[in-house]
Amino acid sequence: MNRLPLERKVLSENDLIANRLRERFLDNRILCVNLISSPGSGKTTLLEKTLEHFPKSQRAAVLTGDIQTENDANRLKRFGFPVKQITTGGTCHLDARMIETHLEDWPLRDLDFLFIENVGNLVCPSSYDLGEAAKIVVLSVTEGEDKPLKYPSIFFRSELLILSKTDLLPYVPFDVDVAMENARRVHPAIDVVKVSCLNGSGMDEWFHWLETRRHSCSLRLPQQQ
Amino acid sequence: MNRLPLERKVLSENDLIANRLRERFLDNRILCVNLISSPGSGKTTLLEKTLEHFPKSQRAAVLTGDIQTENDANRLKRFGFPVKQITTGGTCHLDARMIETHLEDWPLRDLDFLFIENVGNLVCPSSYDLGEAAKIVVLSVTEGEDKPLKYPSIFFRSELLILSKTDLLPYVPFDVDVAMENARRVHPAIDVVKVSCLNGSGMDEWFHWLETRRHSCSLRLPQQQ
Repeated sequence: MNRLPLERKVLSENDLIANRLRERFLDNRILCVNLISSPGSGKTTLLEKTLEHFPKSQRAAVLTGDIQTENDANRLKRFGFPVKQITTGGTCHLDARMIETHLEDWPLRDLDFLFIENVGNLVCPSSYDLGEAAKIVVLSVTEGEDKPLKYPSIFFRSELLILSKTDLLPYVPFDVDVAMENARRVHPAIDVVKVSCLNGSGMDEWFHWLETRRHSCSLRLPQQQ
Repeated sequence: MNRLPLERKVLSENDLIANRLRERFLDNRILCVNLISSPGSGKTTLLEKTLEHFPKSQRAAVLTGDIQTENDANRLKRFGFPVKQITTGGTCHLDARMIETHLEDWPLRDLDFLFIENVGNLVCPSSYDLGEAAKIVVLSVTEGEDKPLKYPSIFFRSELLILSKTDLLPYVPFDVDVAMENARRVHPAIDVVKVSCLNGSGMDEWFHWLETRRHSCSLRLPQQQ
């Protein structure tokens, strides 16, 4: 791993821990993704459908963040994969130390995929590197196509935009092309996958993205944050 | 105004400015409300419909916060009322100093209503007193009925919950009764108004709440934050 860019950077405590995590994920050939969105954009439902799709032999786990409640972990645990809730108790984002602490008793060699579901917040989580290979921003079609311009940081830092709840497109004033154009104004190379967890549309594309990215993460270096 | 509770409190800089603002709003009999929600819950659309409903003689103004872009102010200015954009440049919430600065050249004696549209974020803005008489949380029916439990701070501190986008209820898995029950578990006395800005349902109730609250704010002390 080329350490020069890191050495030039002033490493905050968070970045130090995140880099330690990233090395562990790379050593274990784990694809770790950090899902970020507004509250209610459908991150947990997307993960439910993903775990439901996985064969029982799939080596996958989830860390799910919330300010209060264990609701999301309870929803996700029923698929039989390891799931832990991180309750931040008021903090508006996950940080790398929370991830490291909650991974202490999980043998990483048993995993291929680690999903981190961040606190529902389109602003603050974008600043915290969790050691992930890729940030993924989820935007539901009910939120308006202007969001990439109004919250550019997370769209700039995300490798993939998941446009969710596309089943609602007939009922909401939302122009998919404008939304994608806005996202690409902020981040020209961003990947886009359009999904509906209700009718299943686009889910194969999401699964394909995961498989391809998992394959590549064992071959190439992660993007510098 | 009874100053004892304030004197007992350790006043942060924000609280000091917020209290200064609150006194100015009270002196001028202005109802100042602070609208808080996730990105895309419909705050701007609600304000558009509110300004559209007001007679031209209505003494109302809007401060609208965003991380980037002047989009919201541009949408709201076309109704002829004073509107200013506060662009935070990355900060995830408005603070009292931003409000004070942006009010410098507005004669408050000319206003009855001041609407503050906060940055789209259900977490951080709840901690910042802006001198408002009431915080209002907007939750759209696409976001899930669990949100009051997962983001309790803003529901606890809000006087009113506006349940928005009710026109989408036939198409989303959202139980209004459960959402209201969850909100009242966090804040038993919270008012609830259900609206659709698309079909106009519930808007009269919202306008009535505003008028009643404006009347009472010149008669009673604001709630302590």
